[in-house]
Amino acid sequence: MTQLWWLDPCKTIDVQAQEHALARQQQLTKPAGSLGQLEALAVLLAGLQGQVKPCVDHVWIAIFAGDHGVVAEGVSAYPQEVTGQMLHNFVTGGAAISVLARQLGAQLEVVDLGTVTPSLNLPGVRHLNIAAGTANFAQGPAMNPVQGRLALEAGRDSVRRAREAGTQLFIGGEMGIGNTTAASALACALLECPVSDLTGPGTGLNAQGVSHKVVVIERALALHAPHRGDVLHTLFNLGGFEIAALVGAYLACAQEGIVVLVDGFICSVAALVATRLNPSCREWLLFGHRGAEPGHRHVLQSLEAEPLLALGLRLGEGSGAALAVPLLRLACALHGHMATFAEAAVADRPA
Amino acid sequence: MTQLWWLDPCKTIDVQAQEHALARQQQLTKPAGSLGQLEALAVLLAGLQGQVKPCVDHVWIAIFAGDHGVVAEGVSAYPQEVTGQMLHNFVTGGAAISVLARQLGAQLEVVDLGTVTPSLNLPGVRHLNIAAGTANFAQGPAMNPVQGRLALEAGRDSVRRAREAGTQLFIGGEMGIGNTTAASALACALLECPVSDLTGPGTGLNAQGVSHKVVVIERALALHAPHRGDVLHTLFNLGGFEIAALVGAYLACAQEGIVVLVDGFICSVAALVATRLNPSCREWLLFGHRGAEPGHRHVLQSLEAEPLLALGLRLGEGSGAALAVPLLRLACALHGHMATFAEAAVADRPA
Repeated sequence: MTQLWWLDPCKTIDVQAQEHALARQQQLTKPAGSLGQLEALAVLLAGLQGQVKPCVDHVWIAIFAGDHGVVAEGVSAYPQEVTGQMLHNFVTGGAAISVLARQLGAQLEVVDLGTVTPSLNLPGVRHLNIAAGTANFAQGPAMNPVQGRLALEAGRDSVRRAREAGTQLFIGGEMGIGNTTAASALACALLECPVSDLTGPGTGLNAQGVSHKVVVIERALALHAPHRGDVLHTLFNLGGFEIAALVGAYLACAQEGIVVLVDGFICSVAALVATRLNPSCREWLLFGHRGAEPGHRHVLQSLEAEPLLALGLRLGEGSGAALAVPLLRLACALHGHMATFAEAAVADRPA
Repeated sequence: MTQLWWLDPCKTIDVQAQEHALARQQQLTKPAGSLGQLEALAVLLAGLQGQVKPCVDHVWIAIFAGDHGVVAEGVSAYPQEVTGQMLHNFVTGGAAISVLARQLGAQLEVVDLGTVTPSLNLPGVRHLNIAAGTANFAQGPAMNPVQGRLALEAGRDSVRRAREAGTQLFIGGEMGIGNTTAASALACALLECPVSDLTGPGTGLNAQGVSHKVVVIERALALHAPHRGDVLHTLFNLGGFEIAALVGAYLACAQEGIVVLVDGFICSVAALVATRLNPSCREWLLFGHRGAEPGHRHVLQSLEAEPLLALGLRLGEGSGAALAVPLLRLACALHGHMATFAEAAVADRPA
């Protein structure tokens, strides 16, 4: 591991396992291609996991939470205390992702990178206290380089724990009042899009609120324009602790060889940052859900990502990715357990 | 039950349960609406099942199989013997739907309405032997009224067994070489669309094959045009035994109060026939998957149906609906098990 560990090479795909999986798909008792996206998904998972019959039984869901100084600009529909309150809800089992993790038999880890309630000491939450939220990026950098590295490492450390637990699929989720503002700002800086294309209502702003959010982001982009060409610097200037943790986690997964299922808008922006930092991570990233936040479509397009679901969610917490887990599991089950034409004595189509 | 039992009234929705479920959704610890389609889904299921916290743990999958005389016109990529071979594959566990049913813990029932191999006697298959497949509808009616009623009743009888087993969700699947031709012909007759809009490759015709299929269907529609205004007669003239069984099953579910999850193109055409026969069945029909067969989009539009998934499947067997079952279950779990703002002491957005 180098000092700049996030630039270390990612694991390469197992081409032989992938080819064997493709050959197997073509022998299963169904018209060729009739399982649609699930066929390519099983074959890709085979290549990533290095086994002809892949498996995603062991799922790790890490929720990264952090507060955002930019909330001082009035960019969110909810009060900032909700970040800490939701941490409690995650570990006591009442949040959406808590319910989903239980239903999926997934391991749920909750990492508090730094909220406006630093006195929080919740059983089951890892409190890292990097700072009491980021600084207001409309007035200066959201975090300094030391804080940024700590956040990246927090993501990597979660992946190490996931690896020790035998994880076959990693989902990162996020919670942080104000974090669609940070994600939109980051995406605008990286994609050089008009701010209005990538800015939406978040948890529930009205049209006036969205317009104000656009103005705040435009101001911040102008402030930080001198560093626009430096991806890491841009992440630290405009991101959030939880977004940086997601970036670190995605890169660590790609280096360790753990398949990632990316959630909604904010996670997709973290994925965009990760691919700009270290492009070879891209093939480890699957996408679970196309969310309702308008900017998500643009970010997905730039990543050439085709999510499995589009159910109009805009919750975060990793919920859209979690909802797609059964599809991955069923794709693996079909691939692994269906009979071949020869086994079932079914006639394949005439040549 | 009247002689024309399929016209008997369908069960009405429980408006009070639905209203209570809607009120509950608005109290759960998430921004209002942030679970997208899953919120409306849980509320609708509550109304259909008459309980504030609905449940779809007990799933019944009935596969209806039958052969099609119109295959003599050269409209399918696969030989007709495959229908019988796949029956064997369904009950020995090697088919896609067999794997999915196992993974979902669903009860799988296989009903053979009549294939070109009438000597089949497979353990686990209900062989009804209505006829050795339908007659060639390009030359005459596909089935006579006695056969048609037997097929409708076969669907109803499956629903009765499902009800006895405590089924909370019914999925009908189909298998029958040539049945996209029958489904396209039926949909054209009911929707009065150009045949080319509703005709596709089925299990794998090339462009020339699709053109030929269009010509065969156009000829059949001209032959049966005098009965176009009579939905039941049109079903008997152009349908298949398995399609009529699906129609009977969907109507019986709506009468018994069992939620239906409709599969792909052929099942959606059966749903269209059912709603034309007895419109009040419509609210009992949920839609699992938008398939790759080009006509599916038109049929779904005419039903104002928005399927949960769009994964490019074109397999049939109920597979697209089965893949959507986890989403229904997770929607119920979120609705039933998430904490309310009051329970979790989380601040709702300021008024």
